[in-house]
Amino acid sequence: MAERRRIRPLDALVSPRFTQIATFARLPHDRNLTDVDAAFLGIPFDDGTTYRTGARVGPGAIREQSRLLRPYNMILDVSPFEVLNVLDYGDVDVVPGSHAKTARAIEDTLATLLEAGVAPLIAGGDHSITLPVLRALRRVHGPVHLLHFDSHFDFWDQYWGERYTHGTWLRRALEEGLLGRVGQLGIRGPQFTPDDLRYADEHHLHVVPIAELAENPKKAVGRVLEAVPAREPLYVSWDIDVVDPAYAMATGTPEVGGLTSREALDVVRTLSGHRLVGVDIVEVSPLYEGPGAVTALLAANLFYEFLSVMAKNAVAGLPAF
Amino acid sequence: MAERRRIRPLDALVSPRFTQIATFARLPHDRNLTDVDAAFLGIPFDDGTTYRTGARVGPGAIREQSRLLRPYNMILDVSPFEVLNVLDYGDVDVVPGSHAKTARAIEDTLATLLEAGVAPLIAGGDHSITLPVLRALRRVHGPVHLLHFDSHFDFWDQYWGERYTHGTWLRRALEEGLLGRVGQLGIRGPQFTPDDLRYADEHHLHVVPIAELAENPKKAVGRVLEAVPAREPLYVSWDIDVVDPAYAMATGTPEVGGLTSREALDVVRTLSGHRLVGVDIVEVSPLYEGPGAVTALLAANLFYEFLSVMAKNAVAGLPAF
Amino acid sequence: MAERRRIRPLDALVSPRFTQIATFARLPHDRNLTDVDAAFLGIPFDDGTTYRTGARVGPGAIREQSRLLRPYNMILDVSPFEVLNVLDYGDVDVVPGSHAKTARAIEDTLATLLEAGVAPLIAGGDHSITLPVLRALRRVHGPVHLLHFDSHFDFWDQYWGERYTHGTWLRRALEEGLLGRVGQLGIRGPQFTPDDLRYADEHHLHVVPIAELAENPKKAVGRVLEAVPAREPLYVSWDIDVVDPAYAMATGTPEVGGLTSREALDVVRTLSGHRLVGVDIVEVSPLYEGPGAVTALLAANLFYEFLSVMAKNAVAGLPAF
Amino acid sequence: MAERRRIRPLDALVSPRFTQIATFARLPHDRNLTDVDAAFLGIPFDDGTTYRTGARVGPGAIREQSRLLRPYNMILDVSPFEVLNVLDYGDVDVVPGSHAKTARAIEDTLATLLEAGVAPLIAGGDHSITLPVLRALRRVHGPVHLLHFDSHFDFWDQYWGERYTHGTWLRRALEEGLLGRVGQLGIRGPQFTPDDLRYADEHHLHVVPIAELAENPKKAVGRVLEAVPAREPLYVSWDIDVVDPAYAMATGTPEVGGLTSREALDVVRTLSGHRLVGVDIVEVSPLYEGPGAVTALLAANLFYEFLSVMAKNAVAGLPAF
Amino acid sequence: MAERRRIRPLDALVSPRFTQIATFARLPHDRNLTDVDAAFLGIPFDDGTTYRTGARVGPGAIREQSRLLRPYNMILDVSPFEVLNVLDYGDVDVVPGSHAKTARAIEDTLATLLEAGVAPLIAGGDHSITLPVLRALRRVHGPVHLLHFDSHFDFWDQYWGERYTHGTWLRRALEEGLLGRVGQLGIRGPQFTPDDLRYADEHHLHVVPIAELAENPKKAVGRVLEAVPAREPLYVSWDIDVVDPAYAMATGTPEVGGLTSREALDVVRTLSGHRLVGVDIVEVSPLYEGPGAVTALLAANLFYEFLSVMAKNAVAGLPAF
Amino acid sequence: MAERRRIRPLDALVSPRFTQIATFARLPHDRNLTDVDAAFLGIPFDDGTTYRTGARVGPGAIREQSRLLRPYNMILDVSPFEVLNVLDYGDVDVVPGSHAKTARAIEDTLATLLEAGVAPLIAGGDHSITLPVLRALRRVHGPVHLLHFDSHFDFWDQYWGERYTHGTWLRRALEEGLLGRVGQLGIRGPQFTPDDLRYADEHHLHVVPIAELAENPKKAVGRVLEAVPAREPLYVSWDIDVVDPAYAMATGTPEVGGLTSREALDVVRTLSGHRLVGVDIVEVSPLYEGPGAVTALLAANLFYEFLSVMAKNAVAGLPAF
Repeated sequence: MAERRRIRPLDALVSPRFTQIATFARLPHDRNLTDVDAAFLGIPFDDGTTYRTGARVGPGAIREQSRLLRPYNMILDVSPFEVLNVLDYGDVDVVPGSHAKTARAIEDTLATLLEAGVAPLIAGGDHSITLPVLRALRRVHGPVHLLHFDSHFDFWDQYWGERYTHGTWLRRALEEGLLGRVGQLGIRGPQFTPDDLRYADEHHLHVVPIAELAENPKKAVGRVLEAVPAREPLYVSWDIDVVDPAYAMATGTPEVGGLTSREALDVVRTLSGHRLVGVDIVEVSPLYEGPGAVTALLAANLFYEFLSVMAKNAVAGLPAF
Repeated sequence: MAERRRIRPLDALVSPRFTQIATFARLPHDRNLTDVDAAFLGIPFDDGTTYRTGARVGPGAIREQSRLLRPYNMILDVSPFEVLNVLDYGDVDVVPGSHAKTARAIEDTLATLLEAGVAPLIAGGDHSITLPVLRALRRVHGPVHLLHFDSHFDFWDQYWGERYTHGTWLRRALEEGLLGRVGQLGIRGPQFTPDDLRYADEHHLHVVPIAELAENPKKAVGRVLEAVPAREPLYVSWDIDVVDPAYAMATGTPEVGGLTSREALDVVRTLSGHRLVGVDIVEVSPLYEGPGAVTALLAANLFYEFLSVMAKNAVAGLPAF
Repeated sequence: MAERRRIRPLDALVSPRFTQIATFARLPHDRNLTDVDAAFLGIPFDDGTTYRTGARVGPGAIREQSRLLRPYNMILDVSPFEVLNVLDYGDVDVVPGSHAKTARAIEDTLATLLEAGVAPLIAGGDHSITLPVLRALRRVHGPVHLLHFDSHFDFWDQYWGERYTHGTWLRRALEEGLLGRVGQLGIRGPQFTPDDLRYADEHHLHVVPIAELAENPKKAVGRVLEAVPAREPLYVSWDIDVVDPAYAMATGTPEVGGLTSREALDVVRTLSGHRLVGVDIVEVSPLYEGPGAVTALLAANLFYEFLSVMAKNAVAGLPAF
Repeated sequence: MAERRRIRPLDALVSPRFTQIATFARLPHDRNLTDVDAAFLGIPFDDGTTYRTGARVGPGAIREQSRLLRPYNMILDVSPFEVLNVLDYGDVDVVPGSHAKTARAIEDTLATLLEAGVAPLIAGGDHSITLPVLRALRRVHGPVHLLHFDSHFDFWDQYWGERYTHGTWLRRALEEGLLGRVGQLGIRGPQFTPDDLRYADEHHLHVVPIAELAENPKKAVGRVLEAVPAREPLYVSWDIDVVDPAYAMATGTPEVGGLTSREALDVVRTLSGHRLVGVDIVEVSPLYEGPGAVTALLAANLFYEFLSVMAKNAVAGLPAF
Repeated sequence: MAERRRIRPLDALVSPRFTQIATFARLPHDRNLTDVDAAFLGIPFDDGTTYRTGARVGPGAIREQSRLLRPYNMILDVSPFEVLNVLDYGDVDVVPGSHAKTARAIEDTLATLLEAGVAPLIAGGDHSITLPVLRALRRVHGPVHLLHFDSHFDFWDQYWGERYTHGTWLRRALEEGLLGRVGQLGIRGPQFTPDDLRYADEHHLHVVPIAELAENPKKAVGRVLEAVPAREPLYVSWDIDVVDPAYAMATGTPEVGGLTSREALDVVRTLSGHRLVGVDIVEVSPLYEGPGAVTALLAANLFYEFLSVMAKNAVAGLPAF
Repeated sequence: MAERRRIRPLDALVSPRFTQIATFARLPHDRNLTDVDAAFLGIPFDDGTTYRTGARVGPGAIREQSRLLRPYNMILDVSPFEVLNVLDYGDVDVVPGSHAKTARAIEDTLATLLEAGVAPLIAGGDHSITLPVLRALRRVHGPVHLLHFDSHFDFWDQYWGERYTHGTWLRRALEEGLLGRVGQLGIRGPQFTPDDLRYADEHHLHVVPIAELAENPKKAVGRVLEAVPAREPLYVSWDIDVVDPAYAMATGTPEVGGLTSREALDVVRTLSGHRLVGVDIVEVSPLYEGPGAVTALLAANLFYEFLSVMAKNAVAGLPAF
């Protein structure tokens, strides 16, 4: 019987962290999915934005800032790259100018990963990329539960007649029956109309405003998840603008008054014990920050925490993916 | 009888938010004050600064970052542009190199607005612009009560013999009898001498240090305002440096240890129910930040919150302006 | 008989150049085309880009940097704003995500201008916007002659099956019969295949490589124009990347080895005496430069030179537009 | 008997804060140590970094941002430059490319200062500079107690065979017997292995994770210091990355989830009453931030707070240095 | 008889160029003028600007970028710091907000230098600072000949009633009889009216447009200087905007189409043999460039070339100052 | 017999240029050297710098900016990736803090490449990396002829006792007998002493000052190469600072007055027909430029031109490597 592959990041004690080609967490870039548990996947598409553009270079920036990720997660007490085989799958070959072609390419790539039992760690791109991801998830897992961290609702019907944008994907996903329970956490900022809130109510979206989320992340997330059985597939879609612009200015539609980085990390860590089948972090738009790259650095660390949750689940025997 | 004008921002569902000429909140730029309730006014003067300069381009940066402001304030439950007719009046024609000529131009423009019953939303420029604003307010309202948010006292007598600067305007205003009760909130950082504190005492300025303001904004503001009848005119002068440099680095004399953006928003929202006759946000100096423009974005959002307070008051029948 | 309107920029001796809302050359923003000779028009569309994005904020950056334009062109000896009535028409309401809808909106807006006898000064946006502009020009003028300044040929057939992009507009324009004679000036950099050159030959495009253009702009442009009668309509499409990245780094597909700013100005000035019916400057992507904004500044000055050529023609009695 | 020198910063009421040559707090640059109590010293060495470089220009950036420091510390109620004679000693003449030569230069300069009874305020440079500082301290004071604020442990044995780096200095200091009690505060982020924690235990390092430090700085620091007699020499080594990247992005190995600036200031102020014989702030790497320079500004203010603690101690008669 | 002082820059072979406090060319900062031949002097005043501000931090940026200046000028074959004693005198204590007080302070400082036989190397600040410099020069030297390198004429009468600005200093100087022959070199860009040229004619200003200057610097400068006897005092006022924004974007009123750096260096070198009694380089406004600091670097190198011309003159026995 | 591998860049018509992991020219990252003709190799070492640091991130920046390189070189009429098999070998595992260990690692990696007949395209790192490269070249080729493009001589003996730095490598190489004929082209800027020139003479270095190089690149290079037989191995070491800071500000010791990008490209193209066995481009220090990344873009294009020269030679049957 063939031995299981061992996939590990580059050893910083051999190759200093600033050297070699930038892949996520300095993992190998490879498309062989044998024995792979999770894969970083870039989806550099930003034609779905309605304001600032540039999320197409988000995956590259996150890769670059992930060079600092070290093996052991002290808080969750797990070494994710020891527990899981992880690699950098590269990017989806998106088609600028065509949401439709891009959506098909995304769905196909995701299907490949999911059918191989690989949990995707997806870096956007703008939030419109989540819709085809959810379609692929449904094909494999059936409707998934969704934790949607964002400062915006993203359930508008259309913009200028366009139905597939970063502000409409959630309505499409609901219309297409892709989702189980849905929590929206971190919502804030000016809205279009009071009707926005009504839509959330009518569709049983569990809305957690920023004040409630920030005050007690554990409790806020807990209340959303209390109706979700731990063994049912949970997907997290994390718009980086749920974090405050001081910590994450590099984004397309920033809203003041968001999470701090400590709060954001705490939020992710509360997910431990839930069957996380995938995650995306979207709307990182690197041109809106300088060389300090704090947004991309935070995104890289959030991926690390999500991965640690998956690893911890694996250790605990939870059927993750 | 003539119908009341309806003034509305550009519709983002027709003109995407990144298009068209940059005015505050994408409102019309117009000097016809008929039926106008509030107006954004830039005062791009920065010769009153004693350290970093550049606040002359503050109004432009705030206009640019105000493109994201949407119609409905979910927290205060009001749609300010539905309740109030608001426009962008443009800038005062300041005179670089002359505080005296500029002060006259400011006072004249303010008088025009105030006499037309228009509440000013003023974007500095440096803090020296507040003195002529207060002079105009006194002409129309009599002495106004003042909430002064800042990390600095701004009541020094002179710098190098200059009596009209961004650090002396409050002393001049007190000397000229322009003010009712005065609260100074957010004070912090190194001072010149212990005498600074004594001056505040002697002139019955209600000083709220940053620790007290940050811990409980509602209580801190409440204690200052408890002696101010709700129907008496209240003016707010907000130096952006009351906010921490992490959230507002683009300013002339930054002081570490300030408010977060969440705290800042909370502070503004506590003013609801007080007769706010005008507000300035000063010392936004955009060259000290990058393309993320978090300071200007925060300032735009603070204006939106102030405007929402005014709208809420109007709905409640408070004689605002 | 009604007197002709006089439209003038803001007077810098009344309103300092850094004050007031940013319009092109501080001209009025207005959509009344009576007595208007030329209009600045932004087309903030960038979904046609195949590499770096962000040209959607090009028009705003050019407006901001056009504040310095003064009334008298010393080299061409003409005061363009005295000779011509010029205004800032604002932006086309583009539709992000849809080239087709955007193209219709562009063509409609251009038709409105052209039918009113207004010469357009168009700020992109990416180069895909030129195709609908040319369509509108043909409706009014018939096929126009084209001077295309660029480092790239832009006549590829498609990218990823997409036929309407910033690299294919010229082939579409040729296929649609929109053009008379075509010159391509400034071409350089790596190409796809030697076939690129053959296409140019087969379609009788007059290609002027950068070395020839830079060595003697007057002679190079002259050779292209010698076959174009002065009274026939000439359109100029200027991709800012024809200029070297040292002078114009803020662009989507920069190529080293381009024109200097002095050479670029000289090139424009050679057009005097040719019936220039419109011009676009495209691919200014401001996020790729810092606060010095040299690319946007150069673009503003190039518009000023083009406008001066038009004004000079008007003085000379050439039927411009 | 000779009168004691009086050393004061430049008077901002004579020389505006933005004028004159940049020295720390606008103090004189001088190497005459007569009557000097404390001295700012730059150690611009960054060959010990394992990731982002550039801390060699840290001291200059901190000097520049210290222009705003005013005479009176309102919170600690002390005027440090009145109580203590402080000057800017300039930089150690480091030797790029040689840790050994640099370490000797550092130790020699420190010895000169310490033997003259001057407390050093040291600006790095990377963290490797702390080892020779501790050697010099031991020569004069014997082993000192150490408060080490950092997000990293810094006690690895070697990198690529190199034993003198910014991640190994603490192990070397422990091996060389330079230290009394050691507290490590603010630790967070991914680690190499679970063994990291074991080393801390075995060597009786008092580790305070970030959550504990942030929740109650006074209590956290108090617990570390309860075993340190107030009259025994205490040294503080402050890696700026203990602060969150939103407040201090300009650093070599940033870790999300750190202290805010308010928390950082509070931490320093708790040290009052402890015999602080010196302090370093290291790893400020200014190229990773923009012109707002919030990291360098924070570092300058932290030095001011440390100096104020020293001054307060001096007033209280504590034998400081 | 006392031996002549020897003043030398810091030795880069002892103190690496990036270390120690930033003074011009790493020369001592000192106000003792004994045996001093030339002195760098900052005049950080920018209230005379009519557009972009920020030249107040010009001297600091030039000091920082002058760290690279080495001892031997290979082209002019002279070691300026061997031939001349040069130091950094620091800055004039300007008064922000008051041109009048600042002008007096400038004139007084200049008088001190000139009366001590010290040639000033002046770093602005905006161009308004040149007027008081010329007043001081006249007191000592009588009217001086002036080479004015600039893209603008700077001889307007007033702005908004203000007579002392960066655009009016030359008219004031002419009115006050401070000048001998005047050459204006590098003029370009849009002007106010054709009258601008007439004023130059009427006042016998020798105008050299940019095209002529760039084509043959030696000839262009030579023609201006042919009427100036080599032994009569010549002053150079160099507005950095005579250089193209690609090489000098950090300036207040940039004009495209200017000198390259090679051309600028060539221009300065042609002055050799003329009795250069002082020079200013003004309008360096560092906030408009990034960390590459190419404008400040160029300004530092231009000072070095001017100083080399002075040194070469001294070697040749020309009575310089 | 095994078929020759075909190695090609990613097809931009499948994967848009902004997608996928950043390797040089979007070539595969691979260490299998079978059938490989040339390889891009990063050497991210910057401990040899004496001024600005940061060249350690040069290779990554050049990879990122090489995304735009297309297949066909129109000027040299060659498709380099068709003619040659090229890949991205990754980086040498340098040892920060140790020149000696790093030099060994460099020499070993180079030996591996050279012995496999692979021509190296080396991206620094600072200029100290060239010494071990030359050592490896001598082992395989014997002493090579050297074209050294730079603004500095780089033949000083030591700095602070350090003999292996970016300013001393050439003297070491001469001492170690690694070189045949040596040309130094582009030299300019202030020097230490007139002796610098004498050293060049005594060691028969062919020095071409910048003025001569810029005026006629073909002639200048030709004169250096006329004594080098076309079939003898020629190595080019290109310090990016030979280019002017306007075009290449991102470098460690910039000197004004350098080559333009057009001149630089012309210089490289003159090498066609000479047996180029390798090339390095060093001292790209990306933190000193903004997002436009013009320096890294230029470096990527220079590599492309060098590679095209090699390909052209291969077509012509010149024994390249």
